[in-house]
Amino acid sequence: MRFLSRGVAAVALAALLAPAAQAQSASKIDSLAIRTIYDEALLRGQSYENLRQLTSQVGGRLSGSPEAQKAVEWGKAAMEKAGFDRVYLQEVMVPHWVRGAKEKAEAKVGSKATKFNVCALGGSVATKGKLKAGVVEVTSWDQLAAMPDNQVKGKFIFYNRPMNPTFIETGRAYGDAGDQRRRGAIEAAKRGAVGALVRSLSLAHDDYPHTGTMSYDDKVNKVPAAALSTNGADQLSQLLKANPTLTFELEMACQQLPEVKSYNVVGELKGSKYPDEIISVGGHLDSWDLAQGAHDDGTGIVQSMEVLRLLKATGLRPERTVRAVFFMNEENGTRGGLKYAELAKAANEKHVAAMESDGGGFTPRGFGVEADPATLAKIQSWAPLFVPYHSEEIGPGHGGTDIGPLKGQVKALIGYDCDDQRYFDIHHTAADTFDKVNRRELEMGGASMAALIYLISKYGL
Amino acid sequence: MRFLSRGVAAVALAALLAPAAQAQSASKIDSLAIRTIYDEALLRGQSYENLRQLTSQVGGRLSGSPEAQKAVEWGKAAMEKAGFDRVYLQEVMVPHWVRGAKEKAEAKVGSKATKFNVCALGGSVATKGKLKAGVVEVTSWDQLAAMPDNQVKGKFIFYNRPMNPTFIETGRAYGDAGDQRRRGAIEAAKRGAVGALVRSLSLAHDDYPHTGTMSYDDKVNKVPAAALSTNGADQLSQLLKANPTLTFELEMACQQLPEVKSYNVVGELKGSKYPDEIISVGGHLDSWDLAQGAHDDGTGIVQSMEVLRLLKATGLRPERTVRAVFFMNEENGTRGGLKYAELAKAANEKHVAAMESDGGGFTPRGFGVEADPATLAKIQSWAPLFVPYHSEEIGPGHGGTDIGPLKGQVKALIGYDCDDQRYFDIHHTAADTFDKVNRRELEMGGASMAALIYLISKYGL
Repeated sequence: MRFLSRGVAAVALAALLAPAAQAQSASKIDSLAIRTIYDEALLRGQSYENLRQLTSQVGGRLSGSPEAQKAVEWGKAAMEKAGFDRVYLQEVMVPHWVRGAKEKAEAKVGSKATKFNVCALGGSVATKGKLKAGVVEVTSWDQLAAMPDNQVKGKFIFYNRPMNPTFIETGRAYGDAGDQRRRGAIEAAKRGAVGALVRSLSLAHDDYPHTGTMSYDDKVNKVPAAALSTNGADQLSQLLKANPTLTFELEMACQQLPEVKSYNVVGELKGSKYPDEIISVGGHLDSWDLAQGAHDDGTGIVQSMEVLRLLKATGLRPERTVRAVFFMNEENGTRGGLKYAELAKAANEKHVAAMESDGGGFTPRGFGVEADPATLAKIQSWAPLFVPYHSEEIGPGHGGTDIGPLKGQVKALIGYDCDDQRYFDIHHTAADTFDKVNRRELEMGGASMAALIYLISKYGL
Repeated sequence: MRFLSRGVAAVALAALLAPAAQAQSASKIDSLAIRTIYDEALLRGQSYENLRQLTSQVGGRLSGSPEAQKAVEWGKAAMEKAGFDRVYLQEVMVPHWVRGAKEKAEAKVGSKATKFNVCALGGSVATKGKLKAGVVEVTSWDQLAAMPDNQVKGKFIFYNRPMNPTFIETGRAYGDAGDQRRRGAIEAAKRGAVGALVRSLSLAHDDYPHTGTMSYDDKVNKVPAAALSTNGADQLSQLLKANPTLTFELEMACQQLPEVKSYNVVGELKGSKYPDEIISVGGHLDSWDLAQGAHDDGTGIVQSMEVLRLLKATGLRPERTVRAVFFMNEENGTRGGLKYAELAKAANEKHVAAMESDGGGFTPRGFGVEADPATLAKIQSWAPLFVPYHSEEIGPGHGGTDIGPLKGQVKALIGYDCDDQRYFDIHHTAADTFDKVNRRELEMGGASMAALIYLISKYGL
């Protein structure tokens, strides 16, 4: 390889630090503070080891499961061990959906059967034994709407619209194609179909079916919904071209059990000047059950805890109170996020900002901000400080599902943004495991988050 | 996960496209051209499949090896199949160093032996049987220089200075620590030591020893040089603390064979307006023998070929001639790069620019440019066009080892820059395999390179 060197960052920083003498001095101090945070993260970062524990000792932790409870206990113990000023739980009732026995599926053409690797979408009802029906493939809602009833009634609707690979932001492609997963079962039932088969939301061509939450509408019948891997979807599409009358057999034993008591885990560093002003930084502690929930969202959890540890270890004591929040139940209910906002409101707490890391633990790029223009501009004015770390992309964007309910109670909802090109290859699948996380990338993310939290803590919003 | 959205890119692009009406119009056309290139790469990119072939059908391909010859044949056939205007070979003599039987190493304290996973550094002499000696650990040249002769004579010098993890650009840390590998054997021999043990150049803590080229000085004795994995280096350091008089045994059968005839592989798209003006884009075809040479530098090879394919497939025929060059022997000699520059000069060819991709096949970030200030400024003026692809970091930087010899014959040497945080975890080790390459990241890199080549081809430098 060649030796790399990128001069652009230093040049840009120098130019941007120019304006007035006072501002320059403040910038220099902040620049040094951020360098200290990064050094601590890169030399002695704890995120990676914490993630190793969470993924290996707890693993997948769907809301309501014994593993989710174990994750709560692990999180509380980890924050207590880190020596934060205060660590506590917030009780919250959560849905409890279980997958049951491994799902089975096959397509039959005469006596010839082709097996498919499928998984139930989160929240789906069971098939009650083997559900057999023909399959109708659609790649748009309009196409489904245009089909006569007799073509869809009693069939599986097979939603096979791929994520759009030409969107540079993969999250945009996920949002764009996600309606099939979210509304597929409802729209299928409305037309008298018996179930929904949904192409996995992935940009990779592989054999992993991707789960994720789906919805029902109380006004229509609840039909089972399963995901096919992208390879599987391509294969079923090919089979259908040759044999439009094939029979598909699906067997899923999932069920919705009664709600369960669970918890958000909260840790605090008290602000030195304005202890009553709160900045929250969090991720979600629950994950889908198929894998270890490493990138989704173990990385967000350990980074949030690391933000506090970095501020403590570097002696950059925040002037405002900083809270790490491990939200419960992002994946199928957002109950933790709703509870956190509800309790904050009830206690009349003053929340300045909330940040969430829930887009994977890859190399940091910047932040997406939901705020009024003046607040956004203030946050963007700090971008030069992030240039040396290639993490200066600060602009309007989505904050996060768990912090969303705080809208109206905070000046800014901030989403931590990292390189997302490979995120959806593993998202919500059995492949979302610890080995997919790179130590440096993860620790740099925590440092980037801590740097912005530090600035907000110092200057307010 | 939350849905991501980054508004900053679009906003910045709109602002930057503002100035004058004419410039705006040119920018719009260029912007559309680049979008077309990216769409082709993301929808029908061939880099990933080509890399699969190169890594699985050829594998590791050290200069002079039968695999290197096979890689030449594969490369020529692949470029011919792609239908470029002209495909040819450039003969070049290359060194032929072979590793021989797998290296062995152990440390002995009394009757207790601890095995170490080691590999010969490229170019090292053999040990001629088992080489046994004590070990002296150093972490700086000054420390070595200060040691009395009787402390180092007849010993292994163990260079254990880690790469500096606080450098944000990992390439900088590689350059910074690389002197131990490059000069370790020479400096050891000068002090009468029997060999050099070098901590692997890696930011990961793992068990893979990293090879790479090392040097000898004809004026001093040639002593063997081996790499220890980072974990191994930590372990040896610990052992030495407890037992400074331990004995280390090293066995390596590597040898330097006579030089071998080999080739650069060149493919051309003729320029439509200025066919005699040449823009080269390349990577190196050779790799170390320990793995498949996927990121180093299979990705650079397939991306370079893809640049031409993208221009051809999109109909964006370049106005200047664009050459894809698969350089031979970057890793231990740069003979291919030297030959290419020599032939260009001898033929009095007019070379405009040369680009190299040799920093891994990860998400594109921008380009490092070696050029005079005016040329650099011209290239930087195109940065806004790369903003939508987060690949706009264009600044002074290193071009590449293979294109280096063209200095003085071109207006600009350009290094393709991508996210490098995880690169040195696998670089020069058995772990540099196809599965570490992400399809989207790889294809986006080829698109980013093609976009800049397109602009240079259109506007010149």
